[in-house]
Amino acid sequence: MTLNIGVIGCGMIGRDHTRRLQQVLAGAQVVALSDVNQANAEGVQKDFAPNARIYATGEELIAAPEVHAVLVTSWGATHEPYVLAAIAAGKPVFCEKPLATTAEGARRIVEAEVQFGKRLVQVGFMRRYDAGYLALKEAVDKHTGAPILVHAAHRNPAVPEAYTTPMAIHDTMIHEIDVFRWLLNDDYVSARVLYPRNAARSHTKLRDPQVVVLETAKGVLIDVEIFVNCHYGYDIQCEVVGEDGVASLPEPMTVDMRLGAKRQSTILTDWKDRFVASYDVELNDFIGAATAGGATGPSSWDGYAAAVTADACVAAQSTSGEAVAIALPVRPALYA
Amino acid sequence: MTLNIGVIGCGMIGRDHTRRLQQVLAGAQVVALSDVNQANAEGVQKDFAPNARIYATGEELIAAPEVHAVLVTSWGATHEPYVLAAIAAGKPVFCEKPLATTAEGARRIVEAEVQFGKRLVQVGFMRRYDAGYLALKEAVDKHTGAPILVHAAHRNPAVPEAYTTPMAIHDTMIHEIDVFRWLLNDDYVSARVLYPRNAARSHTKLRDPQVVVLETAKGVLIDVEIFVNCHYGYDIQCEVVGEDGVASLPEPMTVDMRLGAKRQSTILTDWKDRFVASYDVELNDFIGAATAGGATGPSSWDGYAAAVTADACVAAQSTSGEAVAIALPVRPALYA
Amino acid sequence: MTLNIGVIGCGMIGRDHTRRLQQVLAGAQVVALSDVNQANAEGVQKDFAPNARIYATGEELIAAPEVHAVLVTSWGATHEPYVLAAIAAGKPVFCEKPLATTAEGARRIVEAEVQFGKRLVQVGFMRRYDAGYLALKEAVDKHTGAPILVHAAHRNPAVPEAYTTPMAIHDTMIHEIDVFRWLLNDDYVSARVLYPRNAARSHTKLRDPQVVVLETAKGVLIDVEIFVNCHYGYDIQCEVVGEDGVASLPEPMTVDMRLGAKRQSTILTDWKDRFVASYDVELNDFIGAATAGGATGPSSWDGYAAAVTADACVAAQSTSGEAVAIALPVRPALYA
Amino acid sequence: MTLNIGVIGCGMIGRDHTRRLQQVLAGAQVVALSDVNQANAEGVQKDFAPNARIYATGEELIAAPEVHAVLVTSWGATHEPYVLAAIAAGKPVFCEKPLATTAEGARRIVEAEVQFGKRLVQVGFMRRYDAGYLALKEAVDKHTGAPILVHAAHRNPAVPEAYTTPMAIHDTMIHEIDVFRWLLNDDYVSARVLYPRNAARSHTKLRDPQVVVLETAKGVLIDVEIFVNCHYGYDIQCEVVGEDGVASLPEPMTVDMRLGAKRQSTILTDWKDRFVASYDVELNDFIGAATAGGATGPSSWDGYAAAVTADACVAAQSTSGEAVAIALPVRPALYA
Repeated sequence: MTLNIGVIGCGMIGRDHTRRLQQVLAGAQVVALSDVNQANAEGVQKDFAPNARIYATGEELIAAPEVHAVLVTSWGATHEPYVLAAIAAGKPVFCEKPLATTAEGARRIVEAEVQFGKRLVQVGFMRRYDAGYLALKEAVDKHTGAPILVHAAHRNPAVPEAYTTPMAIHDTMIHEIDVFRWLLNDDYVSARVLYPRNAARSHTKLRDPQVVVLETAKGVLIDVEIFVNCHYGYDIQCEVVGEDGVASLPEPMTVDMRLGAKRQSTILTDWKDRFVASYDVELNDFIGAATAGGATGPSSWDGYAAAVTADACVAAQSTSGEAVAIALPVRPALYA
Repeated sequence: MTLNIGVIGCGMIGRDHTRRLQQVLAGAQVVALSDVNQANAEGVQKDFAPNARIYATGEELIAAPEVHAVLVTSWGATHEPYVLAAIAAGKPVFCEKPLATTAEGARRIVEAEVQFGKRLVQVGFMRRYDAGYLALKEAVDKHTGAPILVHAAHRNPAVPEAYTTPMAIHDTMIHEIDVFRWLLNDDYVSARVLYPRNAARSHTKLRDPQVVVLETAKGVLIDVEIFVNCHYGYDIQCEVVGEDGVASLPEPMTVDMRLGAKRQSTILTDWKDRFVASYDVELNDFIGAATAGGATGPSSWDGYAAAVTADACVAAQSTSGEAVAIALPVRPALYA
Repeated sequence: MTLNIGVIGCGMIGRDHTRRLQQVLAGAQVVALSDVNQANAEGVQKDFAPNARIYATGEELIAAPEVHAVLVTSWGATHEPYVLAAIAAGKPVFCEKPLATTAEGARRIVEAEVQFGKRLVQVGFMRRYDAGYLALKEAVDKHTGAPILVHAAHRNPAVPEAYTTPMAIHDTMIHEIDVFRWLLNDDYVSARVLYPRNAARSHTKLRDPQVVVLETAKGVLIDVEIFVNCHYGYDIQCEVVGEDGVASLPEPMTVDMRLGAKRQSTILTDWKDRFVASYDVELNDFIGAATAGGATGPSSWDGYAAAVTADACVAAQSTSGEAVAIALPVRPALYA
Repeated sequence: MTLNIGVIGCGMIGRDHTRRLQQVLAGAQVVALSDVNQANAEGVQKDFAPNARIYATGEELIAAPEVHAVLVTSWGATHEPYVLAAIAAGKPVFCEKPLATTAEGARRIVEAEVQFGKRLVQVGFMRRYDAGYLALKEAVDKHTGAPILVHAAHRNPAVPEAYTTPMAIHDTMIHEIDVFRWLLNDDYVSARVLYPRNAARSHTKLRDPQVVVLETAKGVLIDVEIFVNCHYGYDIQCEVVGEDGVASLPEPMTVDMRLGAKRQSTILTDWKDRFVASYDVELNDFIGAATAGGATGPSSWDGYAAAVTADACVAAQSTSGEAVAIALPVRPALYA
């Protein structure tokens, strides 16, 4: 049985997911495309999905009877209405991050899904599908004892001038926010932001680097260095300190070379290469669950929790290192 | 367009490839199955390919009009006739190693394919598709300068008593034989085998470990430790020494842990886990080329060259460290 | 010319330094010993320095004309008076940490030395002499660009019940406090302490682990994990993030082993083994400078700065993560 | 008690050992110097040993009553007569490699020492004192099980045109020859040399690289890559494969850096830096044993065994990969 998928938003990521569904993964086909700029949809149709039908609007695509499941890869501000429409139509929907541009928006999706009574939404937090994080989680669950501390870094070579201080949370650290909740099976209770001096390569509207400190309900203290103009590469580090020992996120596979009086290996510079394999795995997971009529993986609730946490981090950015409380309502049974 | 594949041989590897084609990879479906023991075919049909038809013989399956391409995953001795039948039928065929049980058999396949005038055969030398070897090849091609030496090891925790000295070549080192021809873009001219004392865990009919030394047409000297009772794990090592530097095969991804006064990471023990990702990639390559009516990747000629080299290594096992010459006929233009 | 040294305090460290001066290093001999418990002095005399004379008090030893230079390795509370006496006598003095048990005491030593007009005191901060930290400093000075962040950890397998929360600063983190001032060539302006939940192996009077955050005058933000019941080993980590890249403190030399499905190497468990080679180097430095009539290396001022910083860290331990200011008087020209 | 040492040969190594004895190590002083070119002796006297007396000949220095022990650091061809003279005088003697320029010469020293009835000679095979090899030996003795294979490499960035094929054995591999006898506690029974094509940077009188294969009495097979124009650095590799696992020689301590899209660390380029710390340790060992009137560490017998083995390797260089037998006479009880 083949899952018929409609893709809303045919920019870079929508195009790449369509290629993935058509050329890489078993079990699904893209039967419908839509984009606010129809030329984008036509381009994707031509290159990857000649049999797909193009719809004028996302709403029409969602309503189309041949569409079994929906991918929302459009502009962030449109995610909420499309996801709500898919839930209303009872169709599984994979939504790229952010689930909504506000915590309230994400909350509305949670409520709609709870009312529907069944999980339909998967959020595109792909790190949970990365082989490295999965191996780290296994090491933490089996070997290090209960976690006490997490030391992490999210480094990116450079950002443009338009990238501002809050974007370090909403666009960059959002991945750590989600993946550590999953890794630790825990929730956040407070956030704090500390600043060193600004890096010379930073910009006028950007404090860079920053150290975000999160505290969890179980008492784990997490420090995350966010450094988006680190210059040398795209580098993701994570070390978990537990009762019995320490485990670290694996480095990407590299060839060790000995050249010119240096032992050396390559560091990635483009974020798109770092977790590229996990996109295949997350969509494969979506195909499996959607074919069975539901959803699995990162949920609406996870998207909502990430949004609430991000808001607290941004609030903390404007204090002098003070802790900002993070409180979530009771978790609905659907997400137990 | 979906490629219709028939699978001959429904044992462990045929079953796994069918799963891969049905559940993991895009672009193909298994429409026909055959096994000398029909219950095996029925089991695979039930678990992974309910719509596939079961044929009494591999020959009938090859002849079936709905079958576009063939996978030969049956018992080694049957590979040659099935591959020859597929060539005769003009159908692309993926054949697990060995291509044939003798060099002469592999030669007959080369001749049949040359006569047909177009590549149809891909041999299942999956290491060429491993991300680690691909990265190593890139490092050698771009950074180390022309290769001069290769140091390698193929270690396996244990083998049963039935495993004899020549099997160390035909079943184990055969992978190094193929992958180094590809890595170096070179051919072998001689083989030599040197023995240390036998390992305590070896058996009466097995010299273990052995060091096989190959020399190439370009003058590269390759030493390969084959140690199939090394006890500690399944471990594949390869270091290339070139004019300007050295590059090493990456280790499999692991979590670095600090526990009980030890810094440690896991070493695999089951060979099936070591190159598991490359099976997906090699079959994806087959699907692409077969859909276009041909074949790519490791060729009949590569299978033949591996068989000739393996025979020389086995001959060298019975000498006192003397070099045994390896000579191939002129390479047909089809494989240039 | 041989430097005649008198050693005050013949416990574990005094005994070890005497062995070092008598049996390992060139250029010095121990001619005088003293200990509050004379049997200790006699034991050291018998084992390592048969020609040394035993003095009833440290003051007498300092005054003895054959003593050119003094090692103070007695109980911490006695350091200040002995160092002051050595300065009064115009004799070079090596003092183990702490220079004094209070910042005020260290200040009095600074003032006495400034009044004397010449450096006579070297404090036993041995990490500055460790080959790993020296290599890290060179990497930071030459390659990483100006430092922005430091991530560090000081982990110890276990401490007894008598070890309390402030001791994590005075006895453990004191080494980081000194070595980072030297590594960064900078001074601290504030300290902050953050706590995760207590580790299960911690004690009633000990918050463990803790994360101490220091801010420097140049704007570097330093986070130091202090975990004295980490169980798995004695492990010192330090990573410096600069404008252009990152450099890490080398791990101690270890043999990489592959055994029992694990790649592994040994982690030290006894702190005395971690910087053992640097004791030779620091005393060699002392011999050289003292032979020339003065002192080099970690100064009284460094000891005073460490004491002031430690007091601020301890004050910060009793707040809820608030920053405590660190202010030093103007640095005397003697320590420029 | 201070050991009075006379140094014969005041070139680079004699000068450095004099500095070591005068400025670094406890327990010895240089009281006599000699050099075929007296200006060399005067230079060393002036820089490091102002109280040393200069002798016109090595023989006179050996005979001088104030000289307790002798260092022979003169031109290789003079080692044998000086060592024989020291033995005749009953004085402990440290002799830099080679002990003699021929196996017969080394044999004469062995016989003289046996006749004297007590060990007096230490040969300057410093690798036995290197912390890395010591740690490797401990790992092999305790963890890997009995050795079966050794894979090694001795790489040097470049050699001048005057360096010929046999020098790869006598000047370069001589260190591996000695250190593996010690590491394995074994003797060699055969040698074989295999050549790849010549490296582009090699010279007309030099086959480079070469792979030397040694077989031991206990059946261990050792392969050593000797590559003296490897260009990228001075790099010493050694991996021991035992019944239960594998252990590797530690890399020199380095700072791991992340810079310019590369993870990197420095590789040494000057052989003098690689084992620099072991010179201190070997001389410290000599001082201890010589003060007690004897010698320890690498013996005359070890020097003789190395010379016999080196001759066999050079003989093997002229064959087509054939094994050349290595036979030693019965080991005298003095060297048990």
